[in-house]
Amino acid sequence: MALINSRSLSVTGSRFRAVYHIRGDAQTAKMRAEDICIEETIEYPPELIPEGGIREHVFGRVEAFDQLATGEFRAVISYADEITGFELPQLLNVLFGNISMKPGIRLVAVDLSASLLAHFRGPRFGIRGLREILGIARRPLLCTATKPMGLAPAELAALAYQLALGGVDIIKDDHGLANQPFAPFTERVLRTCEAIQNANARTGGNTIYLPNVTGPLEIMLERIQFSRAAGAGGIMLIPGYCGVDFMRRVADDDSISLPIMSHPAFIGSYVLSAEFGISHRVLHGSLMRLAGADLTIFPNYVGRFSSYTRHDCREIAEGCTESMGNFPAIFPAPGGGISKDAFADMIQVYGRDVAFLMSSNLHRNSPDLATTVRSYRETLERISEYTHRH
Amino acid sequence: MALINSRSLSVTGSRFRAVYHIRGDAQTAKMRAEDICIEETIEYPPELIPEGGIREHVFGRVEAFDQLATGEFRAVISYADEITGFELPQLLNVLFGNISMKPGIRLVAVDLSASLLAHFRGPRFGIRGLREILGIARRPLLCTATKPMGLAPAELAALAYQLALGGVDIIKDDHGLANQPFAPFTERVLRTCEAIQNANARTGGNTIYLPNVTGPLEIMLERIQFSRAAGAGGIMLIPGYCGVDFMRRVADDDSISLPIMSHPAFIGSYVLSAEFGISHRVLHGSLMRLAGADLTIFPNYVGRFSSYTRHDCREIAEGCTESMGNFPAIFPAPGGGISKDAFADMIQVYGRDVAFLMSSNLHRNSPDLATTVRSYRETLERISEYTHRH
Repeated sequence: MALINSRSLSVTGSRFRAVYHIRGDAQTAKMRAEDICIEETIEYPPELIPEGGIREHVFGRVEAFDQLATGEFRAVISYADEITGFELPQLLNVLFGNISMKPGIRLVAVDLSASLLAHFRGPRFGIRGLREILGIARRPLLCTATKPMGLAPAELAALAYQLALGGVDIIKDDHGLANQPFAPFTERVLRTCEAIQNANARTGGNTIYLPNVTGPLEIMLERIQFSRAAGAGGIMLIPGYCGVDFMRRVADDDSISLPIMSHPAFIGSYVLSAEFGISHRVLHGSLMRLAGADLTIFPNYVGRFSSYTRHDCREIAEGCTESMGNFPAIFPAPGGGISKDAFADMIQVYGRDVAFLMSSNLHRNSPDLATTVRSYRETLERISEYTHRH
Repeated sequence: MALINSRSLSVTGSRFRAVYHIRGDAQTAKMRAEDICIEETIEYPPELIPEGGIREHVFGRVEAFDQLATGEFRAVISYADEITGFELPQLLNVLFGNISMKPGIRLVAVDLSASLLAHFRGPRFGIRGLREILGIARRPLLCTATKPMGLAPAELAALAYQLALGGVDIIKDDHGLANQPFAPFTERVLRTCEAIQNANARTGGNTIYLPNVTGPLEIMLERIQFSRAAGAGGIMLIPGYCGVDFMRRVADDDSISLPIMSHPAFIGSYVLSAEFGISHRVLHGSLMRLAGADLTIFPNYVGRFSSYTRHDCREIAEGCTESMGNFPAIFPAPGGGISKDAFADMIQVYGRDVAFLMSSNLHRNSPDLATTVRSYRETLERISEYTHRH
């Protein structure tokens, strides 16, 4: 093929790895593994590529291939750092681009080289940074949301006041609170910030508020800076809509410098089948961390999202905390079905470095939100102290 | 529940609709339909909401519920326009937010009210606008990509020259061409633009070039403006990474005003199971159109992406062209397995308003790319003329 020459490419030789689970009989699965090496890189008939630079450096490489079970295999594939251009969108594109459209392939783990990770800043705060801000040394964090959609800003703020009075650590907006005519973004953020400051002044506490920042991309940064100026202690972003690279961009921005909580709306479909998509560990753990989240929300293994198992949730916590260059570990933030009865078991699953996100159960049991929150927090402190000593 | 009052909400009463396919026995499916009405709106225990504004206006409403097959149901659910805040991210969040994490629910169609769509601009060019730019009245468009990754800018440009000489209508970058050290973005775009201009000058033709614009969000607009200044006739975006709302923002921008081709990398997992996710029609058709794409790439029903059926592809074409407020129809752009033999059948499936995206087959059959392209284009003109007359 005259059009493709065989010159040497200038590459360092440093490669990163991705692990895929592949369905099919041994022959099909092996073929699929080799197809990933092409589809995620040159996307071109490999037989037309001569010996030389492209074949040697640009093709993905199957580094390991093992059987896991009947009809299920595990392939470790490596890629040259350079093909990512050291930019997050193209890194994602190599890990899981066109193959997202092919059945039987699931991205289950990523192992990025230190030299590649050095191009990314990662989470700004992580577990350690957030614990410092909140003044909580050891116990799990208690988080909640103001809701429901339809309340006016003053009503949402009144809720936030009660929740902060009870000593909840983080109050975020429900992710459905956007910029509706009945609760415009700016008024909601101003009033909620003020309410929480008042409650903190009364209790001497340190509750922080994370507005849900969503909206047209043209004004996202403005809304973030508005939140910051109003006194928000962080922000929540929904990468399913604003894009993972927008989250990365916000995390990198020294003029913002706020903790980021990621919300999983819209992206759940990636994990729902074990036969394709992206694993819980990578989607909710590794990718959110790579894109700068300090806390990553996902459905808890108890509660109304029946689709996430105890094992899935444990794997997310591992994705949040396993070694990843110099990146700090981040908080898994399971939501749904959180109750006093579940705390002990959840600490078994997540450890103490976890942010519990609860709301329905607080409201169900609560003519007086502040008292309910206080009792939840005390339970958490007790259990946490106990598990620390034993 | 004292915290939630029952004041009236100020809403117009205009509502939009979404159609979901739901799995389960009749009782489970009905429960899931009712759950969608809550999960996608108030996300709060409905029993705690008193009569009044929120219950009446903010809750989703099951407008129709029918059985499709054993264990499969169809629910039409309506939502108040106002809960979207008239912003795209929150509109998506209502259509398929938290329920993306729940099994057995698939978003299969959207029917947005005229009053809601009036808040969005939609595709700037669409089929009619692109046909004007290209000077092609009736026949399908012929598109291709420069590849493989690993070539230097001069080599990519040399390919583009040959392809334009043959009279291909649209040349895009392969979606893996980002900003790699061996082919930096700016040099690649400059050289490719120049090559295509030279070819056009020689042939009197009108080939346009759509660079793949990817990269850190901080410099995406800069890269787009760079492309524009260099003479690119449009751009390709990958909403899976930059976010759908970024694409909408670019489409809305009068200072850019270029046709946009969307690439489906990373988002394929939404369609792969009929039991959950988003339908082909909505994902590749309606959503891309809502977010301003003029052409939407997806895997063709022939070729290496075996997962898309003839029926799926037909539905995407419908999503691209069915009535949607004042939005223009847009081009379905199937890629993969495109060959002379397949043209006639593909025109049956897509009609003549289609952009065929081919590359591997051009290169496989081609010591001389320009001649090969020319013969493909002539075949297309002949078949198209024939199907027009008969």
